[in-house]
Amino acid sequence: MFFASDNTGPVHPDVMAALAAANEGYAMGYGADALAAEVQDRIREIFEAPEAVVYLVATGTAANSLALATLSTPWQTVFCSPVAHIHEDECNAPEFFTGGAKLTLVGDADKMTPETLRAAIAGEETRGVHGPQRGPVSITNVTERGTVYTAGEVAGLCAVAKEFGLPVHLDGARFANALVATNATPAEMTWRAGVDALSFGGTKNGCMGVEAVVFFDAEKAWEFELRRKRGAHLFSKHRYLSAQMAAYLQDDLWLRLARMANDGAAKLADGLKDAGAGFEWEPQANMIFPSFPRKRHQALHEAGAKYYVWEGDLDGADPEERLTARLVCDWSVSEDGIDRFLEVLKG
Amino acid sequence: MFFASDNTGPVHPDVMAALAAANEGYAMGYGADALAAEVQDRIREIFEAPEAVVYLVATGTAANSLALATLSTPWQTVFCSPVAHIHEDECNAPEFFTGGAKLTLVGDADKMTPETLRAAIAGEETRGVHGPQRGPVSITNVTERGTVYTAGEVAGLCAVAKEFGLPVHLDGARFANALVATNATPAEMTWRAGVDALSFGGTKNGCMGVEAVVFFDAEKAWEFELRRKRGAHLFSKHRYLSAQMAAYLQDDLWLRLARMANDGAAKLADGLKDAGAGFEWEPQANMIFPSFPRKRHQALHEAGAKYYVWEGDLDGADPEERLTARLVCDWSVSEDGIDRFLEVLKG
Amino acid sequence: MFFASDNTGPVHPDVMAALAAANEGYAMGYGADALAAEVQDRIREIFEAPEAVVYLVATGTAANSLALATLSTPWQTVFCSPVAHIHEDECNAPEFFTGGAKLTLVGDADKMTPETLRAAIAGEETRGVHGPQRGPVSITNVTERGTVYTAGEVAGLCAVAKEFGLPVHLDGARFANALVATNATPAEMTWRAGVDALSFGGTKNGCMGVEAVVFFDAEKAWEFELRRKRGAHLFSKHRYLSAQMAAYLQDDLWLRLARMANDGAAKLADGLKDAGAGFEWEPQANMIFPSFPRKRHQALHEAGAKYYVWEGDLDGADPEERLTARLVCDWSVSEDGIDRFLEVLKG
Amino acid sequence: MFFASDNTGPVHPDVMAALAAANEGYAMGYGADALAAEVQDRIREIFEAPEAVVYLVATGTAANSLALATLSTPWQTVFCSPVAHIHEDECNAPEFFTGGAKLTLVGDADKMTPETLRAAIAGEETRGVHGPQRGPVSITNVTERGTVYTAGEVAGLCAVAKEFGLPVHLDGARFANALVATNATPAEMTWRAGVDALSFGGTKNGCMGVEAVVFFDAEKAWEFELRRKRGAHLFSKHRYLSAQMAAYLQDDLWLRLARMANDGAAKLADGLKDAGAGFEWEPQANMIFPSFPRKRHQALHEAGAKYYVWEGDLDGADPEERLTARLVCDWSVSEDGIDRFLEVLKG
Repeated sequence: MFFASDNTGPVHPDVMAALAAANEGYAMGYGADALAAEVQDRIREIFEAPEAVVYLVATGTAANSLALATLSTPWQTVFCSPVAHIHEDECNAPEFFTGGAKLTLVGDADKMTPETLRAAIAGEETRGVHGPQRGPVSITNVTERGTVYTAGEVAGLCAVAKEFGLPVHLDGARFANALVATNATPAEMTWRAGVDALSFGGTKNGCMGVEAVVFFDAEKAWEFELRRKRGAHLFSKHRYLSAQMAAYLQDDLWLRLARMANDGAAKLADGLKDAGAGFEWEPQANMIFPSFPRKRHQALHEAGAKYYVWEGDLDGADPEERLTARLVCDWSVSEDGIDRFLEVLKG
Repeated sequence: MFFASDNTGPVHPDVMAALAAANEGYAMGYGADALAAEVQDRIREIFEAPEAVVYLVATGTAANSLALATLSTPWQTVFCSPVAHIHEDECNAPEFFTGGAKLTLVGDADKMTPETLRAAIAGEETRGVHGPQRGPVSITNVTERGTVYTAGEVAGLCAVAKEFGLPVHLDGARFANALVATNATPAEMTWRAGVDALSFGGTKNGCMGVEAVVFFDAEKAWEFELRRKRGAHLFSKHRYLSAQMAAYLQDDLWLRLARMANDGAAKLADGLKDAGAGFEWEPQANMIFPSFPRKRHQALHEAGAKYYVWEGDLDGADPEERLTARLVCDWSVSEDGIDRFLEVLKG
Repeated sequence: MFFASDNTGPVHPDVMAALAAANEGYAMGYGADALAAEVQDRIREIFEAPEAVVYLVATGTAANSLALATLSTPWQTVFCSPVAHIHEDECNAPEFFTGGAKLTLVGDADKMTPETLRAAIAGEETRGVHGPQRGPVSITNVTERGTVYTAGEVAGLCAVAKEFGLPVHLDGARFANALVATNATPAEMTWRAGVDALSFGGTKNGCMGVEAVVFFDAEKAWEFELRRKRGAHLFSKHRYLSAQMAAYLQDDLWLRLARMANDGAAKLADGLKDAGAGFEWEPQANMIFPSFPRKRHQALHEAGAKYYVWEGDLDGADPEERLTARLVCDWSVSEDGIDRFLEVLKG
Repeated sequence: MFFASDNTGPVHPDVMAALAAANEGYAMGYGADALAAEVQDRIREIFEAPEAVVYLVATGTAANSLALATLSTPWQTVFCSPVAHIHEDECNAPEFFTGGAKLTLVGDADKMTPETLRAAIAGEETRGVHGPQRGPVSITNVTERGTVYTAGEVAGLCAVAKEFGLPVHLDGARFANALVATNATPAEMTWRAGVDALSFGGTKNGCMGVEAVVFFDAEKAWEFELRRKRGAHLFSKHRYLSAQMAAYLQDDLWLRLARMANDGAAKLADGLKDAGAGFEWEPQANMIFPSFPRKRHQALHEAGAKYYVWEGDLDGADPEERLTARLVCDWSVSEDGIDRFLEVLKG
């Protein structure tokens, strides 16, 4: 009954095995290992993007911040959802790495729409030098509320960005879960839709700590390399980042793991719905937000279930009041855990 | 014959085993894993510093830059050797993380002395707001030329810093090698000498990618935590940093590995001296800079030896001209490799 | 008929005379001129704040950005109205000077209320290191929509800030206009209400280019001085900043000028109301936003009136459609100009 | 006997008159005043550079920092003399505005030479991403030791910069004094020599507070405008910057004032030499560094002479020990003051 986060589960055995295998003999540091080139080739293949350049870092915040810094200037503003990870969960890392760019919040929902995005961009009238200048659009897919953009929706947002000549970043910390949820191909979800740079997550989906930053246009590759080094995110023993990513991509492990996570969440959601839980955001991927009575939360916590109460206070008075939970599944979620959770829920 | 760097060798099996062992079940992220607390306790013990606070990051540049940023303000200047890693090898990461502090180069040698340090600090007369303000002193031990400060020498530099009320940072990317070389205790080499914050290296000495930042005074602990998160250096799956560091500290593995590296370099140095090599910097730890004729370099490279030519051009004309090599040993250095290197060297 | 901005009018003759008078003989630079000390004394008197420290800079953006940077850390967020000058009109200067702090927009109106402010601060739950940390509250008075906070309203916002232990900055680019509009004393509008630092504007109100930054608590005085110098905002020939400010404070010139500006705007507003204009924001100080038919705008522009059309397009089709103007008066506004404007308006 | 600095004297009457003249009626703000365009035209003429773009700011540090930030990236290093104003006297403003670039000190003298510059640039081997990347060369003319580069010498340094593809900035806070001292034309001293951007000083030479930043290539004009605004250095009442600069350029006032300053310093230097003073740096412009016995310094200070003792302690024991003074003349230096100074000196 561990649903606190997709970073609380173990690393997949294939990734561990790859680390062990990479630990033979000598390898040049700082990205000059042979595996790094293989990983780049593999990602180019998977994304059908032979010109893409690929860099590995160890945290999602590094991937996002470095990518956004490369796509923007310090006097611009980045357009994103008010619940975007880059806005709410990175302690101003994007502001730091961009050198002081602003974030403009688009609409008031988990997902941006072409309308809210266009309004937000238009709202930042440039008025010469006075206001912030318009900068990149950053889309989070899967969103931080567990909802998913289809490839078509991403393309719709990119089209608006392109109207204004703005580049697009996709925060894909849960990219695999989004693909699995929508049956889109990697290419359809990214460059074919108009995405310029992708944070391609591995950590939340069975790796130990690796994310790829993929630029579909190689123009800013060297700048990114300098930013990564200056940001202290270039690993000397880089082969262990490469090995994780190589294993992750091998035989579609990344998609298989995401499917396990999504399936777990779907099963959980179905059971919750059966038990009368409500959902503000429709379950689509591996993170769901059911609301159900306080007394059921209390029973679950007593039974050892691990998850965050998203809204409401576990210790409040009215046992029937509905609190919202955040439940996250990763690849390692167990049928048993789900079953037991639902049992306790139903009382 | 692999002497390119101490980051080109494999991770020690004990560290790999600890990663595998940590990969069981669930663990809270972002430093809330149980192992993280154990690591802090263990470091406090080893350093005889029950009040110390300990944070883990994955790269040496992150450790140095975040520590220096925490000890300084953006309008100060950091005092360091002209060959310090923070000056020459971090692509302005210290300037980035400090928000634009300056580095003042002390003397013109690998090691600072109380005299050169005092002159440098005095030279930055404060003249009100006009010049940079005096900031932390940063000592690299082992130095980037393979030489070592004794604990007494560190204390001498700290005493000068304290005359001016300045904090002291120790870049200990090769801290274990420095201890082994000098027989100092961790406490003697750090807080007893006057050091305020330490970058305690693991990566170059058998780990996969982990460095501890140790503050001997807890006052700035929370600021450091915010800086680490904002710098994108807080790992979600933090247990794998903890596990590396725990294994590294277990049964003095860290000191044993450093001894293997230092012994390897000493053996190499002895053989080189026998063969007539010169040394601008006396070999003291695990990195040595012998100079010998170009033709011997050529023979070694043809035989497959891996190392950087530090000064001089491998393809120059005069076969007798002396070029300087940089040879680095890590724990995995083999007797055979050393013997073969010396054989080829002697021709 | 010049109503484009309060920075398009001339400098008041008393200020010009003071510049001429200051231009005698020698004076030490960088704030060591005798007049600088006099100005500080005078501001302490006016604000009944004998411990206040006072610094002069030349632009309002410098005053705001340097004050906010001094009150915050880079991992915090500043709370302000969505129409605040610091958010909309400073090209990310606050983000730059703070080293990457964020701005959190409070409510959706020109003025914050205790309710919207409390909700915004509470909404930035701190959740450890993950989100931005709560930072200073910045109040703009007069607001960018020409409305005014009473001293009581400022106190109400400060009380909320203090609940959370947050400092308060007042952007008083039009501070004199706010005082005149509310009959508050300088002390009531600032430190007695709970304000920690004030940008005290001179430029928009008859000076050439001078703003005072007033800290009611001297604790961060030295930090501010370093920030000012590092921001390239310390004037070598500082006496000319001092002279402007001294003249501005002499015999309540600052209040007299603000009264002229506010009175002009009131007269203009009355005439506009008579003529049927609407006002989204009630005219209270020296900047008003009347809406009236396009054809009247066209007539005014043809007659040479200078002002910005705030909302709507001068060249649109329907002559009866209402567009909103922004009309700003400064001290130099002429009765004649107002009369003529109203005549043309009325057709 | 006021020789403390060239910022302690009064503003020239022509500049004051221009300010008064500009104070008529209304003018659009933020650089849209008609005078701003005239100033740009006039500077293009004077520099024979019809494509140049010209921006006004109020402090020399702003001019230097913004120009360097525009010419560099944060991961580069700026090459300059160890006594450059940007290194010693700006409290890390260049580091702040560039976003954390480094300054590499060239040689150990007041003036760089092609040899020391080439050695410094070559010394920053790029080694991929590890070290700082090579960035702009910044030449200070007149130097902070009162010495002057000829146009030929500037061209020699630029040639070295161009070998490495690096842009060149000229810090001309005392540009007029350098021209007068060398009889070079503005074009010869700048773009014909290879200079890309110039800080063209007015403040030290009779203005109140104005410096022009001149880019001889317009490519980065817009970026500079954004940097200026974001740096809080765009004046709302810009006409008063324009007016100063227009007066300064009128009828060669700028050159006439510099000649007065240089002539004063030359007369002072001649008298000092007659009196046996020594000079480490040969007097060439308006700032000189004579050394003479402590007792003469004491007599001068008692007699009211104002200047800084550059080296040595006024209150030391031995009356015959030589201390070094820094004496600076501006346009307002009086023959009488010089004569009296020399009289007191000679005792």
